[in-house]
Amino acid sequence: MEEIREVDRKVVERISKWAKELLEKAKKEGELYLEVPVRSLSNVIWDEEKGILRMGERVARRSFLNIAHAKRFLQTVVVASAIKSLVEEGVTTSLRDVFYRVKFTIPGTRENVVDDQKESDKAIEDLETMLGFVREEFHVFSKGGKGHVAGPIEIEEHVFSPDGKHRVVEVDCTNVGMGGWAVPPIAEPERVKIKKVEAEFVLVIEKSAVWTRFHEDRFWDEHNAIIVTAEGMPDRATRRLVHRLHYEHGLPVYVLTDADPWGWYIYSVYKQGSINLSYLSPQLATPPSKFLGMTVSDYYDFGFPRTVQIKLTEQDVKRLKELRRYPWFKRKEWHAEFDLMEKKGFKMELEAASSKHWRFISKEYVPAKLEAGKVLP
Amino acid sequence: MEEIREVDRKVVERISKWAKELLEKAKKEGELYLEVPVRSLSNVIWDEEKGILRMGERVARRSFLNIAHAKRFLQTVVVASAIKSLVEEGVTTSLRDVFYRVKFTIPGTRENVVDDQKESDKAIEDLETMLGFVREEFHVFSKGGKGHVAGPIEIEEHVFSPDGKHRVVEVDCTNVGMGGWAVPPIAEPERVKIKKVEAEFVLVIEKSAVWTRFHEDRFWDEHNAIIVTAEGMPDRATRRLVHRLHYEHGLPVYVLTDADPWGWYIYSVYKQGSINLSYLSPQLATPPSKFLGMTVSDYYDFGFPRTVQIKLTEQDVKRLKELRRYPWFKRKEWHAEFDLMEKKGFKMELEAASSKHWRFISKEYVPAKLEAGKVLP
Repeated sequence: MEEIREVDRKVVERISKWAKELLEKAKKEGELYLEVPVRSLSNVIWDEEKGILRMGERVARRSFLNIAHAKRFLQTVVVASAIKSLVEEGVTTSLRDVFYRVKFTIPGTRENVVDDQKESDKAIEDLETMLGFVREEFHVFSKGGKGHVAGPIEIEEHVFSPDGKHRVVEVDCTNVGMGGWAVPPIAEPERVKIKKVEAEFVLVIEKSAVWTRFHEDRFWDEHNAIIVTAEGMPDRATRRLVHRLHYEHGLPVYVLTDADPWGWYIYSVYKQGSINLSYLSPQLATPPSKFLGMTVSDYYDFGFPRTVQIKLTEQDVKRLKELRRYPWFKRKEWHAEFDLMEKKGFKMELEAASSKHWRFISKEYVPAKLEAGKVLP
Repeated sequence: MEEIREVDRKVVERISKWAKELLEKAKKEGELYLEVPVRSLSNVIWDEEKGILRMGERVARRSFLNIAHAKRFLQTVVVASAIKSLVEEGVTTSLRDVFYRVKFTIPGTRENVVDDQKESDKAIEDLETMLGFVREEFHVFSKGGKGHVAGPIEIEEHVFSPDGKHRVVEVDCTNVGMGGWAVPPIAEPERVKIKKVEAEFVLVIEKSAVWTRFHEDRFWDEHNAIIVTAEGMPDRATRRLVHRLHYEHGLPVYVLTDADPWGWYIYSVYKQGSINLSYLSPQLATPPSKFLGMTVSDYYDFGFPRTVQIKLTEQDVKRLKELRRYPWFKRKEWHAEFDLMEKKGFKMELEAASSKHWRFISKEYVPAKLEAGKVLP
């Protein structure tokens, strides 16, 4: 529990120091301003060697006395104050709550500090980059309840309560029910401790219903693996956990999604994160993760019946074109798959495996792919 | 574990007997046909006394030799066979998997058994009503991973594996992490045993992020309650669990949603279920549940600031009109709330409570409503 307190102490100190410096600079330089790292695409750099997107060095100056900047300046300061109270009170909450907390009318005016959640979200992103913390360390999450885990891993959750009743909860993920261990909304090291990992790899499964197939079949036991799902687009906590399993425990990460541009994009999010939040890549992304399936090649290699084909939509074709431009998809293996999908004109879902037999996906398809090392970078 | 086996045995027997009877009747009567209880609105009865929707007595005859019925007849039989194999093999799976399993081309034709998941879903509904089982007893679920629970309740999950390694998992929901106990995709009594309940009531919270507020604040401890969320529209397993907590353990159920027509509809789903699946009401609905909040009256009673108001959309107004026609909303208390919302022209989210202070909702709003007994029927 002391670790949460320690991070909290650092956050509060950093916010106070930052606020003091603002005022001191204002006295010395006669101008009240922020220097915010630029998060737009123009300041994103593809680091070929590390295989991550990262933020460049560009910084924008936001002056209180510039009429175009004044409101964002104010928003940043009000949100900083809200976060300070959150951390001091030991409360953890959602982006939506922060929005309502700072959505008040500026005294003496008819103007609100924020009118749209995007504004408070952006202020939090500004503070993350300026102060060097992730929003989870500010006690703020987006949505919880997406991630589910099973397999040979022991977790210790440190649960802090604002009223002072702290708990340490131990979870053995080989001894969980059919829902698995529910990944909490924040999976930072001071809250989620990975005590023991006996698994050899991590299998991330796009869809929770398919994850249930692997869980019921005890795939984690037979293959000594940790199985993870976050039902579609993963939340940050699940990505953070996968990242930590790779970097803290050296586990290879394999990702299993539908054979469609949306599924492949989900792989891309686990692997690299989103371009607009590239500053988070060092905490959230797992660039060495590999794509296990599905692909249109699998359709031919495994002899799936024609009935599983789903015709590509115009939007799919458009999305494929976008994927081709992502730096980490600029590999010949991926372009061959993009070409094949476009040429054949169909996509395929994970559940298509049930056309063979109920357990084909967990008992034959995935084991065959793993054994043959048939993965994409 | 024997109990799952016992239900399985009954399902397989029932399907076999049903198939045999079809053939015997065909021999005797010279016609192959099904008699399927009608599930359309015209055969739904509002049972005022029990406060539930239930299916009427009307039955439709579906003949194999009637060209308009032949395909649905075939679909029902093929799906019945798929379910039999599922239960015999001890496999649990999703509606989507069943769809792919029965989506094959009828030999000698260019026609598929099904082309759309709606067709296999409807066949399963036919079998539920004809055979008198719920689809969970057929080992079929829709999506898992929605429900999360914390509080003074002890659960024993009986986890069956098709390869024969059964597990019994014990969960003390006062000793779970910040994600809570993840409700499994199927919460039937043979799989989820409620071992011990010390709580005095159940609080169902629409949004998982708000549920996290109650969990972190140990509301379950302070108020001796079980807190449940299913992030928006609940899945069947979560509704089943709430139903069982009420009917097996006598706990009052309170529901907390946004003050908007969508949130109120979610309350309606917990309380009554959907009109089209009224045959499930006896298993899934909890008609005596009460609505704790939010309402537009609360806005005035608790003095929320104007900034939390969200203007009603045209769709909201339309939805309100629909809600007015539901039999269980035909109470003067509800109509007063509908009137007030329409007159004032705004709705409000649960997170609006944070405009007061971070813990207002769990520490003041809900306790005040509970104490004053300010609930809607």
